[in-house]
Amino acid sequence: MTPGRAEIIAIGSELLEPWRLETNGAHLSRRLGEIGVPVRFRTIVGDEPADLKDAFRVALGRSDLVVATGGLGPTVDDLTREAVAELLGLPLIDDAGVAAGIEERFRRRGYAMPPSNRRQAQVPRGATVLRNALGTAPGLLLREQGKTIVLLPGVPSEMRRMFDEEALPQLGRAGERYVYRILKIAGLAESEVDHRLSEVWRQAGEVVWTILAAPGQVEIHLKERVVAGAEPRGIARLDAAAAAVLGPDLFARDDDTMEAVVGRLLLERGESVAIGESLTGGLIAARLTGPPGASRYVLGGVVSYTDAAKTQVLGVRPATLEAHGAVSAETALEMAAGARRLLGASWGASATGYAGPEAGGPQAPPGTVFIGVAGPVSTMTRSFNVPGDRDVVRTRAAQSALDLLRRALLGVIA
Amino acid sequence: MTPGRAEIIAIGSELLEPWRLETNGAHLSRRLGEIGVPVRFRTIVGDEPADLKDAFRVALGRSDLVVATGGLGPTVDDLTREAVAELLGLPLIDDAGVAAGIEERFRRRGYAMPPSNRRQAQVPRGATVLRNALGTAPGLLLREQGKTIVLLPGVPSEMRRMFDEEALPQLGRAGERYVYRILKIAGLAESEVDHRLSEVWRQAGEVVWTILAAPGQVEIHLKERVVAGAEPRGIARLDAAAAAVLGPDLFARDDDTMEAVVGRLLLERGESVAIGESLTGGLIAARLTGPPGASRYVLGGVVSYTDAAKTQVLGVRPATLEAHGAVSAETALEMAAGARRLLGASWGASATGYAGPEAGGPQAPPGTVFIGVAGPVSTMTRSFNVPGDRDVVRTRAAQSALDLLRRALLGVIA
Repeated sequence: MTPGRAEIIAIGSELLEPWRLETNGAHLSRRLGEIGVPVRFRTIVGDEPADLKDAFRVALGRSDLVVATGGLGPTVDDLTREAVAELLGLPLIDDAGVAAGIEERFRRRGYAMPPSNRRQAQVPRGATVLRNALGTAPGLLLREQGKTIVLLPGVPSEMRRMFDEEALPQLGRAGERYVYRILKIAGLAESEVDHRLSEVWRQAGEVVWTILAAPGQVEIHLKERVVAGAEPRGIARLDAAAAAVLGPDLFARDDDTMEAVVGRLLLERGESVAIGESLTGGLIAARLTGPPGASRYVLGGVVSYTDAAKTQVLGVRPATLEAHGAVSAETALEMAAGARRLLGASWGASATGYAGPEAGGPQAPPGTVFIGVAGPVSTMTRSFNVPGDRDVVRTRAAQSALDLLRRALLGVIA
Repeated sequence: MTPGRAEIIAIGSELLEPWRLETNGAHLSRRLGEIGVPVRFRTIVGDEPADLKDAFRVALGRSDLVVATGGLGPTVDDLTREAVAELLGLPLIDDAGVAAGIEERFRRRGYAMPPSNRRQAQVPRGATVLRNALGTAPGLLLREQGKTIVLLPGVPSEMRRMFDEEALPQLGRAGERYVYRILKIAGLAESEVDHRLSEVWRQAGEVVWTILAAPGQVEIHLKERVVAGAEPRGIARLDAAAAAVLGPDLFARDDDTMEAVVGRLLLERGESVAIGESLTGGLIAARLTGPPGASRYVLGGVVSYTDAAKTQVLGVRPATLEAHGAVSAETALEMAAGARRLLGASWGASATGYAGPEAGGPQAPPGTVFIGVAGPVSTMTRSFNVPGDRDVVRTRAAQSALDLLRRALLGVIA
């Protein structure tokens, strides 16, 4: 029988420290999703026996399948086996096969088995042992009171191999699976996206959707449960409906990125781009050169952090700086046109502004940004104010400059 | 009263998906550790109302302080406020001050407040509102039945600022606290750092230490429990011992970064820098311009992604490209010298190489990198090969170029 609701417990006091990221859960979520089992909770708990038992007690109370990682090693703070056995009222029994396997492993490496490793051969009565191809800690699978418990080692490589090869085949397939899709949107606030798509969501049916905001980007995450062999029709329907409403504001799907989209548009046209940037300090160029093969369409760029760099390298006219200032639509346009001319590119893109904390006076607070695009037949500029810290302002300015270039390449702006 | 046991809940169905890492918990663990409050559990839960309520019910049953992130936004799947109010039996009341703040925020950006944002002004009775300096979602602090609940937005920058400035001062301090220190090391592999410091670790005593590796950087994380008013003597002792062994390979501590260190060295000397970069595509300039006030020492840079950009903008000699190729020590040096000259800077720094997947033939596989520095009195260059994908190669190349510049500024290399 396939479990209906799963829960993941990551065990280890070090995982509660600020410098550690727990990554095993992501692998387990994906694998469980692929056999149609939704993960509803993920908990991190330390090696404290009372906390450990509490975590399992809570998980078994609300989930059908509990997959735990860590705490199966030979040291005194590895207490997962004991906690689970005690919670379920099962005695720990020496497993001769497991003990022999661990001894053999040490012998092959020329060591005698340390006495501490003997504990790893203790198995709750009725448990199935999961072989560890890469380490000494065996895993365990228990079925008790209609629940399934899988205990895995915490070392990621050991955990992955054991779960995929030993545990997963015993969990069965639901005959169903999850299909995921991400829609990426630029130029709209999260609440605006939500508002525009309110009609679309009414038809969401069984498709689960979530909206997420990042600087200069809103993401819609769709997830659909489909029976084996079937297509994700709900996702296809919602994607088409959202695309119709959003038009060119919907710029990418799944792992695709703004810079990759811009790159493909340039490649399709056999065109190239050059960047002139100020407050973004190289971020626009760094993003455009991120995708493999970017050298086929990025010629280069200039980071002009001073007025002198703007005039002497990018060819911005001193009179423009004098009349409008370095943070102005006029300067943004001349930077884009200057980068295009300097590097002989089809397109130039630019950003200038105040990233903060310094600003340009009461009329131009931190977050004031001007972006520009100069193309084969026209130029365009946009301005906006970004609330947020220096990093957010820079990230958002770079994203918006790339998006303006994308819209210009698509011909969807005047 | 300072809470004795804390628990963190991260809310959002997307955080249960395989493609998302939950990072807010790390910041909260650290800040709570600094006021002596241990985090015992961290739970990730989706937007499902029943699951959300269950997570809070469980947490309030075993912890004195519950800090939750996410689910405070304006969309229909942001349900944290409602879940907590319902669980505690508190009515939600419109807060006129909060509503006015959100409306003002939209007005300043030239929008009318979408109706969906009105929900964000609903506050459980008796809750203290935590101001959001960077976004619309206000936070909440509740004290009920001897427990403290803090609700924060999920956007990391908003969450961090709100917790540090608005919530933390209301939580009080315990008689003990954890002190953390991070030592950052460049130019050495993780195993080399571990080996060199083996004698230092023998004196670690009660100080917990961990080594972590990132591209171009190794970090040592130290943690010590000290009573109120006392100094972290163990950390001070280990820091001094490690610094003596590592010398200039130890480049920064805690939140300090390579680019900030380089910036301070330039500022102290009243000097400036210009960048000429190829495979890093703007990453070096983007990092150098990251710290606030970078315009005092960064003049600008050139991303020369083609031979023409190298010769025509940076002044690399065609004969050099002809004889040695674009990926060579000679080209790296001329790029650094060219950037310095073009922008009139005290220093020039450069990177050229094959980021991959394309390479320069059997002698120059992907990951081949040359970096250069040109200063007031001398020039220097280094080369190395980075195993890893395109992102890793670019990140490591940028880090190494900044590190070479740092060592040149310190005068510790010939």
